[in-house]
Amino acid sequence: MKISMYDASVKPGMRVMTSLAALLGKAAQHAEARKIDPAVLVGARLAPDMFPLSRQVQIASDTAKIGASRLAGVAAPSWEDSEKTLPELIARVERTVGYLETLAPAQFEGAEDREIRWKTPVVGERSMAGLPYLLHQLLPNLHFHCTTAYAILRHNGVELGKMDYLGRESPA
Amino acid sequence: MKISMYDASVKPGMRVMTSLAALLGKAAQHAEARKIDPAVLVGARLAPDMFPLSRQVQIASDTAKIGASRLAGVAAPSWEDSEKTLPELIARVERTVGYLETLAPAQFEGAEDREIRWKTPVVGERSMAGLPYLLHQLLPNLHFHCTTAYAILRHNGVELGKMDYLGRESPA
Repeated sequence: MKISMYDASVKPGMRVMTSLAALLGKAAQHAEARKIDPAVLVGARLAPDMFPLSRQVQIASDTAKIGASRLAGVAAPSWEDSEKTLPELIARVERTVGYLETLAPAQFEGAEDREIRWKTPVVGERSMAGLPYLLHQLLPNLHFHCTTAYAILRHNGVELGKMDYLGRESPA
Repeated sequence: MKISMYDASVKPGMRVMTSLAALLGKAAQHAEARKIDPAVLVGARLAPDMFPLSRQVQIASDTAKIGASRLAGVAAPSWEDSEKTLPELIARVERTVGYLETLAPAQFEGAEDREIRWKTPVVGERSMAGLPYLLHQLLPNLHFHCTTAYAILRHNGVELGKMDYLGRESPA
């Protein structure tokens, strides 16, 4: 088996974050062209008790950053959730890609067996070995928030297609 | 590295399909309790030019079924997209889990290097090695459609939370 935990965690994180930055860029263009206050998009939700676009993006960023850090066995940097505009959200996503670029494949040696412990607001303390954590927690959670961001923008009329999410370029 | 392509493809597919069936079950209960015609949920969309719930579920099912089959090097069964009710959609998802259960880990030996070729309506013919196909195509596409199904239901008032998507049970 040639799969490395680095390839399976950091690379998908970089790819979907890169797509997310592009989606947000299209949202900014859409708002400008249609004279829409971009704050409407930043605060848009699919349901009154769902998080708005800004929080979806922040959680997606944290999921990518913290998830990869846990697998690498390093402490993730803590970033304030202060973004209030589309350019700020794009910068947050690009900063996430920049952080992922600082992680090295060697840090992920043996990560499949590393015990990952974390706390969730809903379920409390959880733990999983690195491999199930990656496959059943990190990646689903990452795509859950990135897709929800996509869906919020799509619901608000931004012209996007699935290829904007999956990426047109073949992966490196 | 201990990751197997079976563990990384079939197991996440089974898990998210199991969650999707449960989400649709909650939608059916919600419709019954609120005297909502379930057909409204089946046909609900987040934007006029997005697919409705039924199609999102069918594509999620196909993504799980066809993606795992490609990696295993077998032909996926072809299923008609005829579901018109929530119980029929749940049955489609359960049938998908049943199909995934027929695949054996040994079929995925070497799948990371197997050349995967497919056609998309938007981009045309594509090909990738099995590993990038799994990480950058199959899993993102699967979660894209499952999360969109979740988002459609949530937008229509069905009481769901992220743990319904990620699953409360620790993965086997």
